[in-house]
Amino acid sequence: MTAFKYELLKTSGNGRRGRLHTAHGSIETPAFMPIATVGSIKAMRPEEVKAQGADIILGNTYHLMLRPGHELIERRGGYRKFINWQGPILTDSGGFQAYSLSKMRNMTDEGITFTDPYRGHKHLLTPEYSTQIQHSLDATITMVLDECTPYPISRNDMQKSWAQSLKWAKRSRDAWVQREGYAQFGIVQGADHLDLRTQSAEELMEIGFEGYAIGGIVPFKAGNDEAAGLPNFSDQLTVVAEHTAPLLPADKPRYIMGIGFPSDLVRAVMAGTDMFDCVLPTRNARNGHVFVDKSVAEAGHINIRNAKYAEDDSPLDPNCSCDTCQNYSRAYLHHLFKTNEILAFMLLTHHNLAYYQNLMKTLRDAIENDTLAEVGKKLLASVR
Amino acid sequence: MTAFKYELLKTSGNGRRGRLHTAHGSIETPAFMPIATVGSIKAMRPEEVKAQGADIILGNTYHLMLRPGHELIERRGGYRKFINWQGPILTDSGGFQAYSLSKMRNMTDEGITFTDPYRGHKHLLTPEYSTQIQHSLDATITMVLDECTPYPISRNDMQKSWAQSLKWAKRSRDAWVQREGYAQFGIVQGADHLDLRTQSAEELMEIGFEGYAIGGIVPFKAGNDEAAGLPNFSDQLTVVAEHTAPLLPADKPRYIMGIGFPSDLVRAVMAGTDMFDCVLPTRNARNGHVFVDKSVAEAGHINIRNAKYAEDDSPLDPNCSCDTCQNYSRAYLHHLFKTNEILAFMLLTHHNLAYYQNLMKTLRDAIENDTLAEVGKKLLASVR
Repeated sequence: MTAFKYELLKTSGNGRRGRLHTAHGSIETPAFMPIATVGSIKAMRPEEVKAQGADIILGNTYHLMLRPGHELIERRGGYRKFINWQGPILTDSGGFQAYSLSKMRNMTDEGITFTDPYRGHKHLLTPEYSTQIQHSLDATITMVLDECTPYPISRNDMQKSWAQSLKWAKRSRDAWVQREGYAQFGIVQGADHLDLRTQSAEELMEIGFEGYAIGGIVPFKAGNDEAAGLPNFSDQLTVVAEHTAPLLPADKPRYIMGIGFPSDLVRAVMAGTDMFDCVLPTRNARNGHVFVDKSVAEAGHINIRNAKYAEDDSPLDPNCSCDTCQNYSRAYLHHLFKTNEILAFMLLTHHNLAYYQNLMKTLRDAIENDTLAEVGKKLLASVR
Repeated sequence: MTAFKYELLKTSGNGRRGRLHTAHGSIETPAFMPIATVGSIKAMRPEEVKAQGADIILGNTYHLMLRPGHELIERRGGYRKFINWQGPILTDSGGFQAYSLSKMRNMTDEGITFTDPYRGHKHLLTPEYSTQIQHSLDATITMVLDECTPYPISRNDMQKSWAQSLKWAKRSRDAWVQREGYAQFGIVQGADHLDLRTQSAEELMEIGFEGYAIGGIVPFKAGNDEAAGLPNFSDQLTVVAEHTAPLLPADKPRYIMGIGFPSDLVRAVMAGTDMFDCVLPTRNARNGHVFVDKSVAEAGHINIRNAKYAEDDSPLDPNCSCDTCQNYSRAYLHHLFKTNEILAFMLLTHHNLAYYQNLMKTLRDAIENDTLAEVGKKLLASVR
C-alpha cells in the first residue's frame, strides 16, 4: 500500500511542481480535477478524461447521497469502482450544495438540515455524517464539513462562522477513519479578512490534516451551485492565495476550491497552490461556450451557437491539439449544437477539458523549467 | 480510383458473403449501416462506430436538406468530410421522411411537395432534386426517389404506385452523375404482391443500376418515421426477401431498407440480401431499451430503467465483449439513465450498435464456414 504523501519536485517563484502519492495512484501537481457530479463527468467517458491528463476527479457528496445514495454506492465497492474511474477521487463535504441548492435549509451547531429535492424528506448533514458518507464513497481525499459564507461578510460574522467551522473540522477529523494512502483535508476560511485566514490556517494545522484547502473564494449563490461572479474576483483570489499558501506546510498539498477561469488557475498556481476544481469547462461546454486563446478570439472564448460559425471550416482553436480540434470544424460543431445532437456536448466538453488540462501541463512544465514568472505572465495575457 | 464492384466471396444456402468496393473504401457484407440522421450517429463518435465494425453509414437526405442544408454541406466538401466519417456513405432519397414526417404533403407526377417544419415554406422533392441533393452530399451510394406505399395496399393501388415509382426511377437515373466508385440503387416495390415484385425488379434491371434495394418492407406511419409494427412482419419479410433476392443480379449488392430487429437481419441474410439499416439500435438505446441474448433475458431485450437493475452488478449482456459490457454494470447504467446523464446514452448506444455489428460478424463468419443454416437457426432462437 502507498502512503499518502506530497512530494515537492521543483519550485519556480511561489509555484510548486509536485507529485501526490495516494492509495489509488499518483497525481502530478498543479492538477485540475474535472467534476463527476452525480455519476459521470458529463458527456465524457472516464478513460477519455484520464487520457487528457486528469489524474484525479471530484465527486459531489450532496448529489450522490441523494442519487443513487451513498449506501448503494458503498455496496457497489465505492464511487471509483461504480463509475469505472481508474485513479484517486476527492469528494467534497456536501455542505456547499446543501447551502446553495436547497431552498429549505437550516444550520445549527449539530449540522445542516435540508430538504431532499427528490423525495421531500429532511436530511441532517453533520460533520460526522458527511465524513461517513465520503467513507462510503471510498473517497481517496475526504473534505471536512464547514460553513459556507456569503460574500462580502463582516469580520465579526466571519469570526463567528469560523468558530463553528473549526468545531466541525475537529468533529470531521474525529469521525474520519485513517487508512494508508487516504487523506482528509481541512479548509481554511476567513473570506478577505487575512488575519482570520491566518488564524484559521493555524487552528487547522493544530488539528493536523493530510492536506489543506482554501475555501470561500467562490461564495455560494442561493438556489444555484454556480459560482457567483464577484467584483475584483481575480484580485481577491490572488491576495487570499498569496497570503494563505505560505502559511500552510510545504510538505502538504494545497487545494483552492471551486476555481475558476483559466487565468484564475494561472494566478493560483503562481501563488503556490496545487489542486483545483471547477464546473466551468464542462458546464460551459453544454451551453456552447468554448475556451480558446485570446489570439483566436479576443474574449478568450467563443460561443459556437453564433451564426457566424455556420460556414467556418476552422477548428475551435487552431492552437489546440485535442481530438475535437484535430478532426472537427466550427461549422460542424455549430450544426450539431443547433440540432441538439448529443455529439455536440461530447465534442465541446472534450475540448474545454483538454484546454484546461493543457494549461495545467504548460504550468507544470514552466515550474520544471523555472520559467513560471514569464510563462505565467504570457498566459495571463492570452487566456480568459 | 476504385471501381464500384460487388465481389461475391462465398455462399452458404442463399446467404452471400461479399465485399463491396467503392470510391471511399470497401464494405464487408452482409453489412449493417448505422444511421447518421442529421449530422451524427447519435451519442457516438465516428471512429467508435467504425471500430465496432461499421464499414458504411447512412445519411438522411430529408433531414440534411433542411438542416444544415445540402448546399452548406457541399461547400464543406460533402457529408463524409463534414462529419469526419472515414468511409463510404449511403443516402436515402428523402421520400420516406417527406411522406411520414410532413403533415402537409402532396404527391404529383412531378414529385412530393412538403412543408418545411422549421421555416414553413414549401419544398418540391423531385427525382432530379433528390438525386442532386445526394450529389451535393457526395453520397457514395445514391438511392432513387420512389413512392412509399402504406400497408396493406391492394394489387391495383400498388400497380398504380409502381407505375409512378418506375417513372421516377428513370428520372433519378437520368439525373445521376456517374463517377468511378460511386453507385445508384434502384428500389424494388410491390408490397406483398409477389408478381409485382417480379415486374418491379425486371423493370429496374432494364434501366440498370449498380445495386438494388427492396423497399416497402417497413411501411411508413404518418407523423412518425418509426417503423409501423406489422402483423406477421417477419413472415412477410422472409416471403418477400426470398422471392425477390434471387430475381436480382448475383454480381450486384442487395439492400433491404429499414429493417429491423436482430432476428429480421438473420432472416434477411438467410434470404440472400446484403445490406441493412435501422434506427432501432440507436433510438431504442436512448429509451433505455437494450438488446441482449434471450439466454440473458427471455424477451431478447431489457429496459435499464427498470428498478430491478438498481443494484445489479452484472453487465448488460454477459456474452457481449463491447466496451460498455466490459466496464460498466447495470446498476451504474440504471443510475446514469435515471439521472439523465449524457453518458447513459453514449454507453447504451455503444452496446446496441456493437450487438448489431457482432451479429453481422457472426453471420459473415457462418457464411464463410458454410454453416449459415445451423447458425441462423440458433440465432433465431436466441435474439429478439
